[in-house]
Amino acid sequence: MQDDDLNIQTGTYTFANPPEGLLLKCGETLGSIDIIWESYGRLNKDKSNAILICHALTGNAHVAGKYQASDAKTGWWDPIIGPGKPLDTDKYFILCSNFLGGCSGSTGPSSINPRTGEPYGMTFPTITIDDMVQCQKALVCDHFGIQKLFSVVGGSIGGMQVLSWAVQFPEMVQSMIPMATVHRLSPQAIAFNKIGRRCIMLDPKWNNGNYYRDMPDLDGLALARMVAHITYLSDEGMQHKFGRDSRAHSIFEFDDAFEVEHYLDHQGYSFVKRFDANSYLYLSKAMDIFDWERDYGSLENAIRPITAKSLVMTFSSDWLFPPYQTEEMVTVFKSLNKDIEYHKIESYKGHDAFLIEYELINPIIENFLSRVEA
Amino acid sequence: MQDDDLNIQTGTYTFANPPEGLLLKCGETLGSIDIIWESYGRLNKDKSNAILICHALTGNAHVAGKYQASDAKTGWWDPIIGPGKPLDTDKYFILCSNFLGGCSGSTGPSSINPRTGEPYGMTFPTITIDDMVQCQKALVCDHFGIQKLFSVVGGSIGGMQVLSWAVQFPEMVQSMIPMATVHRLSPQAIAFNKIGRRCIMLDPKWNNGNYYRDMPDLDGLALARMVAHITYLSDEGMQHKFGRDSRAHSIFEFDDAFEVEHYLDHQGYSFVKRFDANSYLYLSKAMDIFDWERDYGSLENAIRPITAKSLVMTFSSDWLFPPYQTEEMVTVFKSLNKDIEYHKIESYKGHDAFLIEYELINPIIENFLSRVEA
Repeated sequence: MQDDDLNIQTGTYTFANPPEGLLLKCGETLGSIDIIWESYGRLNKDKSNAILICHALTGNAHVAGKYQASDAKTGWWDPIIGPGKPLDTDKYFILCSNFLGGCSGSTGPSSINPRTGEPYGMTFPTITIDDMVQCQKALVCDHFGIQKLFSVVGGSIGGMQVLSWAVQFPEMVQSMIPMATVHRLSPQAIAFNKIGRRCIMLDPKWNNGNYYRDMPDLDGLALARMVAHITYLSDEGMQHKFGRDSRAHSIFEFDDAFEVEHYLDHQGYSFVKRFDANSYLYLSKAMDIFDWERDYGSLENAIRPITAKSLVMTFSSDWLFPPYQTEEMVTVFKSLNKDIEYHKIESYKGHDAFLIEYELINPIIENFLSRVEA
Repeated sequence: MQDDDLNIQTGTYTFANPPEGLLLKCGETLGSIDIIWESYGRLNKDKSNAILICHALTGNAHVAGKYQASDAKTGWWDPIIGPGKPLDTDKYFILCSNFLGGCSGSTGPSSINPRTGEPYGMTFPTITIDDMVQCQKALVCDHFGIQKLFSVVGGSIGGMQVLSWAVQFPEMVQSMIPMATVHRLSPQAIAFNKIGRRCIMLDPKWNNGNYYRDMPDLDGLALARMVAHITYLSDEGMQHKFGRDSRAHSIFEFDDAFEVEHYLDHQGYSFVKRFDANSYLYLSKAMDIFDWERDYGSLENAIRPITAKSLVMTFSSDWLFPPYQTEEMVTVFKSLNKDIEYHKIESYKGHDAFLIEYELINPIIENFLSRVEA
């Protein structure tokens, strides 16, 4: 591996072997489960310097650095992770795993069901954010022998995992940094997830989830991604980025007359090369059913056991996970006298801001972690 | 006809016969053209009391009243139109026509192309808002002999037609009431229109627009309607209307677990019974390319010739046609000393507010029209 400073390590942890498997929240069991992980920096002797990153919907465990100098891209959160960066690999052991249900190597709908020898497809059970975190907990505890995480960090669905960690395993979470996330989606966000799922299902090539033999480019998945991209940007951001620019010969051309249409097509069709449509279905569903109020009866009940010091960040133009929704949760943290620091960051970059606004984010994280250390 | 007070009249005006046809903005000609119209009240002797209603995307010329007492529903803007209502049929002659490109009887993609004897389908030319208004102008002038409209009124794409009237035929428009509309769509709104079109095109039953023989229920059109519905409501409105309610046996159910999902399905699939998918494509495209700044070089150039007294209304939670975009136009009207009255109405009903918030809208219209009369 390159990037010696980072000390990138990768591996696969296999657990929950049949017949027991992992008991999922929906009542079904699943096993065996592979969890692909990647780490940076070095775990210290008392295993007290581990920071777990929870990746977002279409991310993966490759958070930082390059495997080889010739790699076109670094990991997806490289500006935050590395020597001298806020998640400083000279101090911390950074760990990330591909989540359950995804399509980057960990067990998901595209994995082979050991009972049938065929891909799960739509026979994969309905998974939850809590189930993903159960898998991460097995990796952290049983594989790495870490009893307490110095911090758990993530944005969007990654932020939901952070929240799930803090409430499911309060004794294991010294601090947490949930970003651009909420304790439950709004009906508007559920509606957009439904649209994405229906786009996939409308595509005849999806074939009820049985497309693994031919692996066609799924137009429905591309369309689902386009819908999602609109929700990741903001009205103002799109004005800045595209305006009403056109590269078409004529605006009367029926398809792709405007620059914004080109952009969506590009995003949609590059996505289908790297993502599994069934994973998309299961992951968006997992987001829909994450709900502290339903699961714990009230926000107060959910938050009361949490002991982690918390840094919560939202972004002013994020309308998919709007600040006001996150603030409902923050208010309860404060009313219960929890150690919580909240920042609403001014940005027109929309939900995607947590992957872009490093100049604003990084100093806040640095400052928070030094306070946790103290 | 029932509703004697209203004096509902209907008819079809046919014009632009081949070979001349109507010269469209895209450069093609179209003919012959049928325009279905409906009227309420009585045209006075000097033909000075006519108010033209421009309907919205999925509306039609049946704006008010019932044809028969047993009709389940009144026309779509009944609370505004009738004896003693703001558009008072005891005083005004109210006229509305199904717009060009639609599917309620006026010429559109589902009409028979006289040159081929087959439905136009996707051979229908790209139409614009200005083309629709050209057809309305022919109806108003050539059929009814009206030289000046007392007012032109409409919301959303109907509001775009109102704006087009005022700039194309300034001498014919004494006053105008554009509601929940803008002089050009934002890239975000264009993006949503693109998604809707792609939903339709993804459906194999759409068959490149050649589905008129079998007239199947088009899932893609239902999905396009669902996307649109999200943009017609608001985040807050959806919280009020649905919250995270569920009527499913279990939230782990994959489809339609939440009430908001049921709602979208209901809206989508009732829509496909009454609307033509190809019309939807052409009409959303017409909205995309409506652009005063491109067509006239600047907002100032577009607005300078306008002589109509104007009442402009926006709705605070309308994020598809956001008030701040309309206000750009209003600012220029004011800077050119035009007679304009602007109201941003507080409502959480989103873009749909112009079809709902009558208690707030009606007094404003009433007051404005009495000022125009004076």
